[in-house]
Amino acid sequence: MRTDLARFFNPRSIAIIGASQDTVSISGQPLKHLLSHKYPGELYPVNPKYPEVLGVKCYPSLAALPKAPDLALVLVNASRVADALRQCGKLGVPYAIVFSSGFSETGGKGIAMQRELAEIAAEFNIGIIGPNCQGMINPAGRVYAGFGSIFGADYEPGRISMVSQSGGFGFSVMNLAALDGGLHFRQMVTTGNEIGVSSLDFINYFIDDEHTDIIACYIEGLKDANRLISIGNRALEKKKPIFAWKVGNTEQGQKAAASHTANLGGAMALYKAAFHQSGIIQVDDIQDVIDYSRAFQCGKLPAGNRVAIITISGGAGILMTDECVARGMQVPQVTAATTDKLRDIVPSFGSLVNPIDVTAAIFSDLTMISRTLNAVLDDPNVDSIAMINASLMGDLAASVAREIVAVAKHSKKPIFLTWSARDSVATEAYAMLDAEKIPHYKSPVRCGRALSALSYYSQALRRADASRTVPVPLITSTDARDMLAGKTDDITEFAAKQVLARYGIGVTIEELATSREQAVAHAKRIGYPVVLKVQSPDIPHKTEAKAVRLGLASDADVADAYDEIVRNAKAYKRDARVDGVLVQEMVTGGIEAILGVTNDPLFGPAVMFGLGGIFAEVLKDVAFRIAPVSKAGALEMIAEIKGYAVLTGVRGAAHADIDALADAIVRLSALAIDLKDRVAELDINPLFVLPKGKGVKAGDALIKPLSAVDPAQG
Amino acid sequence: MRTDLARFFNPRSIAIIGASQDTVSISGQPLKHLLSHKYPGELYPVNPKYPEVLGVKCYPSLAALPKAPDLALVLVNASRVADALRQCGKLGVPYAIVFSSGFSETGGKGIAMQRELAEIAAEFNIGIIGPNCQGMINPAGRVYAGFGSIFGADYEPGRISMVSQSGGFGFSVMNLAALDGGLHFRQMVTTGNEIGVSSLDFINYFIDDEHTDIIACYIEGLKDANRLISIGNRALEKKKPIFAWKVGNTEQGQKAAASHTANLGGAMALYKAAFHQSGIIQVDDIQDVIDYSRAFQCGKLPAGNRVAIITISGGAGILMTDECVARGMQVPQVTAATTDKLRDIVPSFGSLVNPIDVTAAIFSDLTMISRTLNAVLDDPNVDSIAMINASLMGDLAASVAREIVAVAKHSKKPIFLTWSARDSVATEAYAMLDAEKIPHYKSPVRCGRALSALSYYSQALRRADASRTVPVPLITSTDARDMLAGKTDDITEFAAKQVLARYGIGVTIEELATSREQAVAHAKRIGYPVVLKVQSPDIPHKTEAKAVRLGLASDADVADAYDEIVRNAKAYKRDARVDGVLVQEMVTGGIEAILGVTNDPLFGPAVMFGLGGIFAEVLKDVAFRIAPVSKAGALEMIAEIKGYAVLTGVRGAAHADIDALADAIVRLSALAIDLKDRVAELDINPLFVLPKGKGVKAGDALIKPLSAVDPAQG
Repeated sequence: MRTDLARFFNPRSIAIIGASQDTVSISGQPLKHLLSHKYPGELYPVNPKYPEVLGVKCYPSLAALPKAPDLALVLVNASRVADALRQCGKLGVPYAIVFSSGFSETGGKGIAMQRELAEIAAEFNIGIIGPNCQGMINPAGRVYAGFGSIFGADYEPGRISMVSQSGGFGFSVMNLAALDGGLHFRQMVTTGNEIGVSSLDFINYFIDDEHTDIIACYIEGLKDANRLISIGNRALEKKKPIFAWKVGNTEQGQKAAASHTANLGGAMALYKAAFHQSGIIQVDDIQDVIDYSRAFQCGKLPAGNRVAIITISGGAGILMTDECVARGMQVPQVTAATTDKLRDIVPSFGSLVNPIDVTAAIFSDLTMISRTLNAVLDDPNVDSIAMINASLMGDLAASVAREIVAVAKHSKKPIFLTWSARDSVATEAYAMLDAEKIPHYKSPVRCGRALSALSYYSQALRRADASRTVPVPLITSTDARDMLAGKTDDITEFAAKQVLARYGIGVTIEELATSREQAVAHAKRIGYPVVLKVQSPDIPHKTEAKAVRLGLASDADVADAYDEIVRNAKAYKRDARVDGVLVQEMVTGGIEAILGVTNDPLFGPAVMFGLGGIFAEVLKDVAFRIAPVSKAGALEMIAEIKGYAVLTGVRGAAHADIDALADAIVRLSALAIDLKDRVAELDINPLFVLPKGKGVKAGDALIKPLSAVDPAQG
Repeated sequence: MRTDLARFFNPRSIAIIGASQDTVSISGQPLKHLLSHKYPGELYPVNPKYPEVLGVKCYPSLAALPKAPDLALVLVNASRVADALRQCGKLGVPYAIVFSSGFSETGGKGIAMQRELAEIAAEFNIGIIGPNCQGMINPAGRVYAGFGSIFGADYEPGRISMVSQSGGFGFSVMNLAALDGGLHFRQMVTTGNEIGVSSLDFINYFIDDEHTDIIACYIEGLKDANRLISIGNRALEKKKPIFAWKVGNTEQGQKAAASHTANLGGAMALYKAAFHQSGIIQVDDIQDVIDYSRAFQCGKLPAGNRVAIITISGGAGILMTDECVARGMQVPQVTAATTDKLRDIVPSFGSLVNPIDVTAAIFSDLTMISRTLNAVLDDPNVDSIAMINASLMGDLAASVAREIVAVAKHSKKPIFLTWSARDSVATEAYAMLDAEKIPHYKSPVRCGRALSALSYYSQALRRADASRTVPVPLITSTDARDMLAGKTDDITEFAAKQVLARYGIGVTIEELATSREQAVAHAKRIGYPVVLKVQSPDIPHKTEAKAVRLGLASDADVADAYDEIVRNAKAYKRDARVDGVLVQEMVTGGIEAILGVTNDPLFGPAVMFGLGGIFAEVLKDVAFRIAPVSKAGALEMIAEIKGYAVLTGVRGAAHADIDALADAIVRLSALAIDLKDRVAELDINPLFVLPKGKGVKAGDALIKPLSAVDPAQG
């Protein structure tokens, strides 16, 4: 597929297939908008019905064009799109935007029709955008290739580029952000059903586009989600933040997303994991895009997530503290040295505790502002400053802004401002701040949120740097690959744990017995007490079948238990294949965790961690990461779950071996990658996490081979 | 204390004590602002230094005034405030705003100085506002009695009244909401350290103020929080919504709140409970106040929380679905009859599944809009409609708005709109919507949030109506009161459960034994198996002392266990007073829950519910309510916790007796009220919740008498 999208955004000539003289209709609008915005290239309306449209010579067919256009806009009825595309292909048209609806979003026949379009695009190497989309705007190139009322406005070119799977929503963001929010766009493109050039293709292009500093996207579902992390990391390397709306966050929203674009919704948990792993910043509303863009335009990144809040309004300081802390920042105490410096400046009815309440008295002597800011900037506990100036306006506002600008010029630490004066009464002050790119917001909540986004991004950058230094270890095992080759049935405990062991994941000591006598012999070697469990591919729920016995302490007990288990297994399921009875060391004193692998059709292999029992089952308190996972990433996963305190010791319980647990997650993620063509799902449940220094042991495990899930993928 | 606040907001005369000629200083500003806004009453600057200030005759002292003013503004230094207030008192001044800082917020001497002000206010019955506050604005009365740059602007009178504990933040809200958001205020007052007239006094006044429709407040902490629910419920009765910022939501924010106003922060959980119980709507940012006010101004309340979303942008529809569902609304399917009607209107590439994607084709024939809206309004599954019109602008927008207005006029169900066109390109459309008070928002997220707020409020109203029909039962027990009279030590299990039993709360069958023989006799009567536990006020952690034995099944076991427990108890704590050994039925098959009472110094008695083990301990997964709690309220509490599924049966476990559990919560809340002068804290841990129909049984209980916590309150 074509990826040289510069030509798409800057076509030298455009054919409008199905151009109409009715400028209100969808097929009449693109030509009208291209003309009214003075598109500088050549325009070729194509419609056998007209000799000209809007004063532009109209051609009866694509074949009649004087030369192949760089871009075709396809506006004909769904049933005629395939034919139009084939003609484009024959002519060598590199890009086509298909506006027409009536494809996969309608189900039924539309799905087959859409498949045909994809086949034509592949055959002729056409970069298709759409179908069922609303077009593209490149203000700098005066390319307004689409329909909808917002195409009537003129947009100033800027440095944010956006791709949206929803036309209506995407263009409303551009319109409001640009004209009311002062945030200008380099490019805006909508992708609809996205059968050709995908959202990630566009993001990938924006990363290299020298005119783009910030990337935004609206995502319902990505068919190529497995590229998300690598593209996200490339954006991190190029220091281009990505803001993402991912909709379908609630179960019902997810359903709506599925019905809307006929995309696979993908599990929100995996999206969230992928965003986290690649520093992609989730946004909720249009205001976020405007506010966060302003934050990133300051050009400074905090070295850590510790903010000092300096305020003349105690109330606003508390609001901002709440917002920053809720979003993962710290509002730490400043050092004693800083406190001493502040004591000379702040009046006694202020507060020297962060949030630092300097009171409005600070404005009575302007040098106090620079003294305060410098004292706090010098503090080693502080990575950024958020200053709250309430509604300060007029000349005093201008003087205060001048002081702040003078300090900020020489500071590497970002300074953010909450300043509630309306634009018209602090014009001079705001102009000075804008010139120096000092972010300022009308409310403490918006300011705190934007600073937190910058801080989150900066943390992702540090994480990415660290992971380049310490690459994630890969493990390969031909043994394990061979063990799983050709399997279609579930791989049960004994065999599954042998696979785990190949990747260095701790498992219980155990042996398979096929007779009473062998069971006793194994038990003696392993040491009492032991556990006995049936091994059968036909009995996944061993406890339910009464085919598990715990804490067996003598030869006689083991012998009896052996018989009982085989008997119960047969009683539970008459024709169950019984491989034998597993004799296993009895693990005590550990905390039960769950580790899992899911080989997601969209994202590829991902790992899951949670605590056992109600944590995973009732509370869904689990953490996901797309594989591979580094040691640092695994530690983060572990700390992320709400039940984390269970591992660090509640009620005097021992601190669990979190280091070994993290190591097991890393190894499991390596397994997931090594066996990604063999394993559909893998569950370790329970994984016993023993006290610190004692490691972890898989107590039970189950592997669903890939072919068992979908033979086509096997 | 004075509560006739109409006179405070509409004073006929104002004395400005400490008026200054320096109009930039805090003490110089109030007179300047009162004059520039043409305050219609009499003004009396008081300052011995000047014969006149700003052309107004100045008096050397309060005593020299021609008559007592209705309101005094106190602007003198903290050390001279007490004297000024005393003079006010002698003169019979009913209200004083104390602007001066330097009181409890500075700690130390300031606390004592503040106490003195409160005493003077009480002695002379002065309604004090402040100290450490920023004043008040009543635009209709042209009373601009305060300082700060926002006092320079002129405000149009409106129908929202606000009280704020933070001056800087409160006035910035008013300024931005009024001048940028078109939301106009009836009154705005700030209360600072709030030693006199409290935020709740002001809210109470606003409820009865015929010029106020909507009330807003900014709260750091309420010293009279126990009035919150009754005042909230009075507001519900009068149908006046209250929007509340409660800051200090995070632990750190809470700390900041405490240091800022020296108010007791109060536990956020109790505030949230009280808000929920009285329909108070929490807001996060200024935009919420503007958006929610617009929602309430529509004058229609949804009869339930089910919304139908009608959209021309699939993407925006999903965003709104996410937002509504996340905020507790339902986006249900419409009936088959409605679907049939819509099938005739919506094109095949649209979607008939809620969110209903009607596509932009709906605008090609305007009658389709009214047909769609009417079809959905008629649906019995739908309580409100949210329609999304993307960026529709100009003449078409006006025609669409006309259709919507025509339908909305005759609908009792609220219709909300997301309409992203900028104000300047949909002027006519927006004017029509505004005239009909149809709420419209630029983004689907803001629209969904505002509709959810309206829905939450409407649900609170229904809850309040229901609770008037079925009043919460009160239970009194003189027995229980007597049992707790004069107690200072913890009341341990046996006695505590006897108290519970007096209120009809199920407890285990048990007897206290003081000898081996008695223990065996009790066990025989109760029936095997039994549990034995030491009873000692000196051993709160019985298990730790190895003074509990479970599952005793024979006379001999009981006899031995008796001796062992007494021995272990003495070994654990040599001089422990041992009341005896409790012989108790052994409860099996129940789910362990925790019930508690906390007699909060601010809120009074509150009840807590959670599940046992890690739910409460690690996850803090508990629900609070201020007592009394109705049966419906108790059921809501139970369903609110994240672990709720444990009670409804996970993995084939039995459905627990939720009805009996709710009944126990109601009874416990009645106990909490009946014994509020006796009980500081009460814990039932565990409460065994037996399978459906089998009730609940308190397995252990502990009461901390009130005098044990604070003798002053006893």
